[in-house]
Amino acid sequence: MTSLVSVIVSGGAGTRLWPLSRELAPKAFMRLPDGETLLGKTAKRALSPPGVGELLTVTNRELYFRTKDVYAELGDRKPRAASYILEPFGRNTAPAIALAAMAVEAHHGGDAVMLVLPADHLIADRDAFVAAVARAAELAADQMLVTFGITPTRAETGFGYLECGDALDNSDRAPAAFRVRRFVEKPDQATARSYVAAGNFVWNSGMFCFTTAAILAALKRHAGTLLGAVERCADAIRSADASMMEIDPDLFASVPDISIDYAVMEPAAAAGEVAVVRGTFDWTDVGSWQAVAELEAADSDGNRGHGERVSIATRNTFVHADDRVVATVGVENLAIIDTPDALLVANRDALQRVREVVTELKTRGHDAAREARTVLRPWGAFTVLHEGPGFKVKRIEVKPGAAISLQLHHRRREHWVVVAGTATVTRGDEVFSVETQDSTHIPVETKHRLENSGAAPLVIMEIQCGDYLGEDDIVRFEDRYGRAK
Amino acid sequence: MTSLVSVIVSGGAGTRLWPLSRELAPKAFMRLPDGETLLGKTAKRALSPPGVGELLTVTNRELYFRTKDVYAELGDRKPRAASYILEPFGRNTAPAIALAAMAVEAHHGGDAVMLVLPADHLIADRDAFVAAVARAAELAADQMLVTFGITPTRAETGFGYLECGDALDNSDRAPAAFRVRRFVEKPDQATARSYVAAGNFVWNSGMFCFTTAAILAALKRHAGTLLGAVERCADAIRSADASMMEIDPDLFASVPDISIDYAVMEPAAAAGEVAVVRGTFDWTDVGSWQAVAELEAADSDGNRGHGERVSIATRNTFVHADDRVVATVGVENLAIIDTPDALLVANRDALQRVREVVTELKTRGHDAAREARTVLRPWGAFTVLHEGPGFKVKRIEVKPGAAISLQLHHRRREHWVVVAGTATVTRGDEVFSVETQDSTHIPVETKHRLENSGAAPLVIMEIQCGDYLGEDDIVRFEDRYGRAK
Repeated sequence: MTSLVSVIVSGGAGTRLWPLSRELAPKAFMRLPDGETLLGKTAKRALSPPGVGELLTVTNRELYFRTKDVYAELGDRKPRAASYILEPFGRNTAPAIALAAMAVEAHHGGDAVMLVLPADHLIADRDAFVAAVARAAELAADQMLVTFGITPTRAETGFGYLECGDALDNSDRAPAAFRVRRFVEKPDQATARSYVAAGNFVWNSGMFCFTTAAILAALKRHAGTLLGAVERCADAIRSADASMMEIDPDLFASVPDISIDYAVMEPAAAAGEVAVVRGTFDWTDVGSWQAVAELEAADSDGNRGHGERVSIATRNTFVHADDRVVATVGVENLAIIDTPDALLVANRDALQRVREVVTELKTRGHDAAREARTVLRPWGAFTVLHEGPGFKVKRIEVKPGAAISLQLHHRRREHWVVVAGTATVTRGDEVFSVETQDSTHIPVETKHRLENSGAAPLVIMEIQCGDYLGEDDIVRFEDRYGRAK
Repeated sequence: MTSLVSVIVSGGAGTRLWPLSRELAPKAFMRLPDGETLLGKTAKRALSPPGVGELLTVTNRELYFRTKDVYAELGDRKPRAASYILEPFGRNTAPAIALAAMAVEAHHGGDAVMLVLPADHLIADRDAFVAAVARAAELAADQMLVTFGITPTRAETGFGYLECGDALDNSDRAPAAFRVRRFVEKPDQATARSYVAAGNFVWNSGMFCFTTAAILAALKRHAGTLLGAVERCADAIRSADASMMEIDPDLFASVPDISIDYAVMEPAAAAGEVAVVRGTFDWTDVGSWQAVAELEAADSDGNRGHGERVSIATRNTFVHADDRVVATVGVENLAIIDTPDALLVANRDALQRVREVVTELKTRGHDAAREARTVLRPWGAFTVLHEGPGFKVKRIEVKPGAAISLQLHHRRREHWVVVAGTATVTRGDEVFSVETQDSTHIPVETKHRLENSGAAPLVIMEIQCGDYLGEDDIVRFEDRYGRAK
């Protein structure tokens, strides 16, 4: 059997899922009610077909460490081998898939079959998914470009559709496969209804299967300029670590921003080169709060949600409550998403417009568009709990074995109280331990480092004092995560 | 001229204004958009009629220091003399007014005129108010029990009404005064409409004016049992400080819980003893979020509010935003009240039902019914910013000249970082100063006190560490506010 390599394309900001999804905390990292992330679920699914042990993820620098953390959480089910392509910025799916195809070809040759999965879909029936992948891999081995279609359950206007042509075999075997006649963009309501009625239209799931040779040949035929630009990026990778390929920003800037559907699949379908496997599994593109709400069971009033809720005369309302009590009185058909620094109250019929909030926040230069109150870092995370004139209070969590860079501040001093774990503190020329419940103090202009040499998470409360407390008052001398330059 | 003493009756919880109003932070203390509290505005109004310099406030122990703080904020306009009756718990208006009448009679005799005002009303036209009080004081001097009526501007079903009988003089002098024919409870919509159409009905504002002799005589006639029970409470007051009269809980428990309208005014009106002065001023019983919303100007979409708001396709919606951004999408006719520990989203047509949220929270034993995240104390305030296993982070603010009790904890140690002002710290046998940006540490089982001997507020961040962090792990040795017993 030829190699089967799963490729996860991760990075869409998911602005319609604000305020839980942020630019630096996209929806693939959102925790679902079961505690898992969409990315974690996608990784498990990507590794479920027999023969797949290797996972290639296309993402970006900001999300690299977080992605590794999610895979590490999978425990026994984590990938045997994981590699990463890090884009400097998003350029849609065609460049991402082209880069992935080159990387897989370099290691496994032109016969290697790639299974390409967006990071933020949800499929519950894994057996049906595996069966569809098996069928797709057979067709891919015949040099077809294979897509996965979902039988529409409603006249959805938010998805693209595929028109199925001839069946690719005459037997009754499931899942069925067809040649794709054409790709169609998101239709209007009437057109969507006609597609559902016609019976030979399926939703375009955005998942693909093909050999590296087939997709690279199709890219060459239909998107030669793009392929050339991507090849220059691939050639320029000079990483010592073959499992982490960073793409040069200047070279990547010249790559067209275009989807794989538009660049390759549509013209290839016209040339008869594209097949669709009609999946018999459920499939959710968790693209809006409506989709998230539907992951939870409704009570007898149609209300859903979690957290401390008080519902008076409330119907058909979804509440995501965090650490506060959320009370609703006399309302219906709302989605209420409560987070530590931002609140959304939206009509469930207007959820497509949530992205306009993000646009407006960006216009105002408001942080709530970019990151949540808890900011993730390669070494752990910090949260600003409180600030006032001349001071700032932060919760800082350092992962076992991790360390904050050796640094110095010109204008602030810091008080540290250890509330969990043991800190190894470098302060000037001293290195010493600070145990739980103990404290220490870092004067202005003093080189310091906070390190967790223990096996449990280290949590400290940091009180910064000074006349300037911006994150940019930092001189980094040494950093394990390449940030000292 | 006889004495005119203003009496403010304060203490209604204002459950319809949750979550800004809480049991321990009632609506009279809510800050309005202009930064003033309803209580502060009421005190200024109470002191505005000529001849009034003395203010008697009926409230409770929990609100005593906060009430004094509000009056202190009035600066030049603060009362020349302020005294307080502290009820151990609420018993409606009849007992409160009876206690006040006895206290005023004891100091000023039976001819003294009392002006009784609820703490949480809003009246903008102070001159018209003063004119109405002057008219009421004349009638009170003739031993009438005087109420203030407001000409209805709509068929409101949330207020009681007074039916006016004969005019009390034949001239055209304003404000007009009438004998009251009867008191009527909150009517239904049709009845309210008929009252407005009839022209001789006014809203019962809940404000009163009478001599101590007249009200005590009327209490004796119409509510003798209640008066007897209240007299026993008054006789038992053994305060060295005549300006602070604490009522004994056991004695007060036997006083009937009844309103002055029901206990005295209704039967007295039937006996022809009650007059009404028809005020020409505006009047708002700030009794619901609708009334609070109307204090602010609406934009062209009918939206009102304050704080960081993003409004997409939003109409007729009131948003109270605190330190978070509040985004609304495709909603209308909502009131959204965002506070650090609780959120309310209510239809503006269902605001009367907000009190049901408080009832439900009490049933659940949830703190959000009782107090806000920032808890006020006689010496200042504290806010729990964050807590986790084995630690708690508090912001503590100590007023100039104030001190926390000399205390000790058996199971926690405390780290203190001063972020504003200067702390005078007692720790065991030492007393020392801690300046802004500096820190200190209080070990377990060590007597300590935090004091602000400076002129500016003292703010510290306290990190508590220990296996038990309940507020009840405290041994108080000495307390300026009588809490060491």
